[in-house]
Formats: sequence, structure tokens, C-alpha cells
Amino acid sequence: MTDNSAEAAAPSRRALIGWGGAGLALGAVAAGGTVAMATAGDDADQAGAETGAAIAFHGDHQAGVSTPVQDRLHFAAFDVTTDDRAAFVQMLKDWTEAARKMTAGQAVGEGAYGGLAEAPPDDTGEALGLKPSRLTLTIGFGPSLFGKFGLQDQRPEALIDLPKFAGDNLDKNRSGGDLCIQACADDPQVAVHAIRNLARIGFGKVVIRWSQLGFGKTSSTTPEAQTPRNLMGFKDGTRNIAGTETDRLKKFVWVDEKDGPGWMAGGSYLVARRIRMHIETWDRTSLQEQEDIFGRDKGEGAPVGKAKERDEPFLKAMLPDAHVRLAHPDSNQGATILRRGYSFTDGTDGLGRLDAGLFFLAYQRDVREGFVRIQRNLAKDTLNEYIQHVGSAVFAVPPGVRGTDDWWGSTLLTEEA
Amino acid sequence: MTDNSAEAAAPSRRALIGWGGAGLALGAVAAGGTVAMATAGDDADQAGAETGAAIAFHGDHQAGVSTPVQDRLHFAAFDVTTDDRAAFVQMLKDWTEAARKMTAGQAVGEGAYGGLAEAPPDDTGEALGLKPSRLTLTIGFGPSLFGKFGLQDQRPEALIDLPKFAGDNLDKNRSGGDLCIQACADDPQVAVHAIRNLARIGFGKVVIRWSQLGFGKTSSTTPEAQTPRNLMGFKDGTRNIAGTETDRLKKFVWVDEKDGPGWMAGGSYLVARRIRMHIETWDRTSLQEQEDIFGRDKGEGAPVGKAKERDEPFLKAMLPDAHVRLAHPDSNQGATILRRGYSFTDGTDGLGRLDAGLFFLAYQRDVREGFVRIQRNLAKDTLNEYIQHVGSAVFAVPPGVRGTDDWWGSTLLTEEA
Repeated sequence: MTDNSAEAAAPSRRALIGWGGAGLALGAVAAGGTVAMATAGDDADQAGAETGAAIAFHGDHQAGVSTPVQDRLHFAAFDVTTDDRAAFVQMLKDWTEAARKMTAGQAVGEGAYGGLAEAPPDDTGEALGLKPSRLTLTIGFGPSLFGKFGLQDQRPEALIDLPKFAGDNLDKNRSGGDLCIQACADDPQVAVHAIRNLARIGFGKVVIRWSQLGFGKTSSTTPEAQTPRNLMGFKDGTRNIAGTETDRLKKFVWVDEKDGPGWMAGGSYLVARRIRMHIETWDRTSLQEQEDIFGRDKGEGAPVGKAKERDEPFLKAMLPDAHVRLAHPDSNQGATILRRGYSFTDGTDGLGRLDAGLFFLAYQRDVREGFVRIQRNLAKDTLNEYIQHVGSAVFAVPPGVRGTDDWWGSTLLTEEA
Repeated sequence: MTDNSAEAAAPSRRALIGWGGAGLALGAVAAGGTVAMATAGDDADQAGAETGAAIAFHGDHQAGVSTPVQDRLHFAAFDVTTDDRAAFVQMLKDWTEAARKMTAGQAVGEGAYGGLAEAPPDDTGEALGLKPSRLTLTIGFGPSLFGKFGLQDQRPEALIDLPKFAGDNLDKNRSGGDLCIQACADDPQVAVHAIRNLARIGFGKVVIRWSQLGFGKTSSTTPEAQTPRNLMGFKDGTRNIAGTETDRLKKFVWVDEKDGPGWMAGGSYLVARRIRMHIETWDRTSLQEQEDIFGRDKGEGAPVGKAKERDEPFLKAMLPDAHVRLAHPDSNQGATILRRGYSFTDGTDGLGRLDAGLFFLAYQRDVREGFVRIQRNLAKDTLNEYIQHVGSAVFAVPPGVRGTDDWWGSTLLTEEA
């Protein structure tokens, strides 16, 4: 079975109609449009870029990692409040069922008005009539989860507690979490709706610890797309791993069976960092200094001394502490991560400065050989004068849900502790 | 001269190319696309709904009021920190020039890399390559501004300090402001870029007091469009004033010359309210109760006893304290406002509840006969169990900028105090 392949997509498409009994088709069907099922992680990806399409939920890998990056993000970290393993497992099954429906553009359960008038609607309703919008929902398990439900021995070695890095100024209220859900969609209302409905299903079992809305993608995972710009005004993600680069995904992103533990095969590890930018200070910095700091020019995004964005960087032409040079695989024993970050703006702080920056999301096969190695090297980055890491979390992202009988976390939690 | 008419659009289109000298065309031109100039407030509106198009900045009225509602919002309230009237006027002129360029999809000043390498770029750069995205920038003047710069005698009678309403729980850090800028665009990065660059131009003269990002429009001002849903899952704005309804706009939205003061002719008054929804409580309420509270059904949005969303409501069929009944013009001596609100989600509070709701924006010819009358009547609204007003502001929105020599606030500030 390949990643969210056409084979995986077909049942979902049928299901979109089949599940229509009491449920309500929220999306393209309700809106009178057509539903294009797309797949993640292979050449059929581009179909997923079609406006409003659905991304297949089932596959060897979870969608939302190598899937072409959607425009908007709602990310939520949860803490588990129950100590009843069976209740927790049931919630994961209920979440999976809801995720399957929402990613197909359908309402949760009996819908917003498909149930009894005397009961609260199963679905909160604000996504009725909206398209699937390429929604992906991706689950991750934090280190603290493995202190619960007898899971101690299942914790992957690669799921380390992140070390303290130079310059970290972490807010514990924006860090950690037993679980996470990454909701990406081209329509923010679809992403917000998904997190809200999962939180609601989880009532009494989990509670949201923190959440983050991202309004603009800062990395592309489709090589031919225009590279997005971060809030420093620079193109970001030029050399990112593309969803079509099967070899690099295998080498740097997906956990191999031999890496262990077995339940993580086909999964990945996610590092989330809330990076505040001191944009008012940055905005008073000269163009030359900005370009020196990055090691690329601002307009084209070409590496120092080169003409085009995608030209191979010549690292020695850059200042020793240029960001691109320090973050480059050649400066980090080959370390390579898949970035999926989003710009955020969360109002204004007490001094009238925009609370804005980059919500950095990176997927990798091993955190120790990916983010940790690169972030250690970035200790001397001149960019650090203008940014500060204020939130941090790490999650083990299990493999994909294989079919309609499977559920999120089944490889970890199927056997009784 | 009609509202942001084709005549007004033409100079802007020429300017898009004419200003290209040292400046950079950010938008459709840079992206290799075409620029479709659209107009606000007349039949040509629909052209503005074209993806990525530009909305004309010049006109009798400011764009962003009767303009078809864009998908995303960044709203900022500013306090004035200078007591130098000339410096404040110069800032308004500089803001106008920047707004003219950004709404046309161009960079501010010499652009992000069009100036001297030794100087900070004039434009922060994160919107380079993005389309104009129907950006509108709308300025408003708060009551407190009229305590400055010798403007006491210019304060409109209609610009009252809002009374305290039943249930208000206002946070002063999310209320008030000497000035506001409403940035609406179909791409949030374009709206955020605009506020950031205006804040930067205002450095030393104004400081952001508070700001609000809105991710989903909750009202439509185009009658034929699908009515959006708020975070309670209900359609919102079914009977809103449409941008094409010239007579209703004239009667309820635009300040008439005879209303006074003269400098406000062609302007409007804006009420902004941050309305937090207790969505976890709402989500536990039965469908029947939800529909009784609104006075419409959840799926179709039809008024009680009627079949279709746009059927005329029969108010006496609703419960006496149903929201639609209490807010209806017939229950408020005809009071009618133009709504332009957005859904927001600002992370999570200390109890794991989503800090989410409606950022309500309403335009009217006279606040006393519009919002105040309706909001007083809503004191008995059963919806109040599920919402709370936590931020509030009111602004006088001056008339439009008439041409390239005109500037925001010219009718108020041209004469020396």
C-alpha cells in the first residue's frame, strides 16, 4: 500500500456518499460542487491543490506531513485528563471517525441538524456549506503521554525531551502537551471547526493546553510553487523537501521499521516552536544587513553571489554566521528536516508591538539528527538578535490510518498494557 | 463623482504602472498576472470579487464599508503619541500614499529592495508577489482624538461615547483608540502587511493600542452570495445591507451633508465590539433551544415558520426574546446597520476553552439611531447567556479620498486649529 494512494482515496470517495445516510455532506456536495479526492505523498498530489478538494485521510503515512502545504493552520496541544485507558482509546477511535468525515468535507456524527431536536447537534455547524478545503488532521503523541496508561516502555528513544537551546525563553503555557492535532486547510474556518469538534468529542478525557492559529504558510512542499515569504519579508523554504521527493522523504522524514519502535514505522517526529519576531527592530535594519543575515537577497531569494533563488548556495561566499549557511545540511552533517511553518499574528503586546512571528513546524525521522543538530548550530546565528523562541513542543507522529477499521494510535495502543 | 467609480479606478490603474519607477509592483503585475481594478459601492462591485483583484482606493466614500466583504480582517486601533499637529497631518498624508499603493498591490515607498542597501527597506516585504487580494484600508477617528489638536469643536454629535450596555464586561486593553484602521483582504498576509507598514510609518506619532485578526467573514454584503456562518453555526447577515442597495446605503449608512458636521458628509460611523462566545456551553445546548434563541433554523436559516432563508420573518411566530426578533428593524423603530463582522479565535484561555467569537463591525449613519438602539433592545436577548461583549470602540469614518492630491482626514484637518 502506498501513501494515501489512489487505492486509499477510492474508499473515501465512496464513503462520502455512503455515509450520507443520517450524516450531512458539508462540503463540495452540499455546495453543489464536485469532490476531487486527492492523495498525499505521491505524484497525484497536485490534484489536491485544486481549490476546495479533499485530501485522502487513509494511507501508510498520515496526511499533513508531505501533503502540499495548505494556506492556513490551527494547531492544538492537549493534555489528557482521564486515567481510564479504555476511555482514552475510545476517544481516539471517535476522533478518527470524526477526522475521516471532516477531511472528506462531511459533518461530524449526525450533523448540525440531523439529530434529535432535544439533543445538542453532533456537529457545531460553522463549516456547513464550506468545501473540504484540503483539510488534513495529523495527530502526535508528546513525551508526557508515555508516563500514562502503562506506555513507559513504548516511548521511542528518538522522542527526546528537547534540550535547552541558547536564547530560549519558553513560556510553559505555550509548550508541551500529551497530544497534538495539526489542522491544515485552505480555509481557516474549516481548520478551526475541526479542532473545536475534536476538543468537544474529547470533553472529559482531554483539555486543550494551548493552541496556535497560523495565517500564512511560510514553506512550500511543492517545488514548482512560488516560495512563500515569512514576516521578515524573505522567501522561506526554497530547499525544503517536496512531497514528491520520495527518496528524501524516506531518508529524512519517515521512520523506518528498523529504526524502532515498531509502532512508529511509517511515522515521523514533529518539532513545534513558537518563534516571536522582533519585527519593529528588524524593520529598522538596513537591507544590506538583512541580506547578510540570511545569506540570500531579499527580492529574488538568490544565495549570496548567485543569480536565482534555486541556484545551489556557495556557503563560503556567505558570512560565517549567515542563517542559510548555518542551517544548511553541509554545516550539520547532512541534517535535513521538512518544514511546514506558518506566520502568526496574535494581537499586540503591552508596548504596542505586534505579537507576530513564525510558528515553526518541522518533521524528521529522528529529532536528534534533525532539529536538535541544526538548532544547536544556529546558536551563533545573527538572526537571533531579531527572534526569540517562546514556545516548544515535540511529538511522535504515528503512521497513517490504514482503512475504515483502523484508528489513530492503533499501533501504540491496541495491546492492553 | 460616484463612489469609487470607474473614473476613480482609472487613475489608480495608470498609477500602478506609473508609480513603477523606483517602486515595486507587489501584486498581480509582479506575479505575472493582470490587474483588475474594481469599484466599491456600485454595480461594478462584482468585478471586485475576482480573485486577487484590486479595489479602487479613491471615491466619495471610503472603500471597505459597502465593498463586498473580503475573507479576512486585520483591525488595529491606535493612540496618538505626538502633540505636534503638523507631524500628525503629515503622517496621515504618508499613510494615504502608502494605502493608495498597497491597495493597488504595490509596495510602500521604494519597496523592499528598491532603496539604498545602507537603509532599511521602505516596505517590509512579506507581501511581495502576492496579489492585491481586494485589500481595502478604512480609517476612523475615535472620540478621544477630538480632545487633541484643537479638534474639540469638530467632534460630531453622533460620535457619542457608547453607554454601558447590560452584560458588558469590557477590557480597556481591547477598547477605544484615537484612530483605527480596518484592513480587509482575501489574503490575511496582505491585511497584516498593510497594518504593519502603517504602524511603521506612524512610529513616533502613533502606537497600536490593540489589534484583532479575523479569520472568517460572518456577514455578506452581496445579496446573491452564500450567507456565511458564525461560530455558533448559524447563518449571519441574511438581511444585511448589500453594497448594491444604494437607497438603503444612503438612508442608513452614509452621513448626509445636512446631518453635519460638514467634514463627515459621505462618511459613516463604525462600532466595533469584540464578542466572546462561550462556545463550550453553546455546544451543549439542544438544537431546538439554539433555533429558538436565534429565531431561525440552523440548516437553511429560515425564520420560524418559514421555508427559506430569505423569506420575510414573521416576528410574532418567534419567542419574544429571540435574537432575530429583537434585532429586527421593526422592533427598533426601523434601526438598520450594515454589518461587516469576522469570526476570531485567539488561542485558549487558562481553562482550556477557545478564546473565540465574533469581532462585530457595524456601519451606520448615526450610532444613536443604529447600534445603540438595537443593542439596548438586545438586553433581553436569550443569546446573552452564551456571549459576552469584552471589547468596544466607536469611530467616525470620514468620507473617501477624492484623488491623488487628497488624503485621509483632509476634510477634518485641512484648516489650522
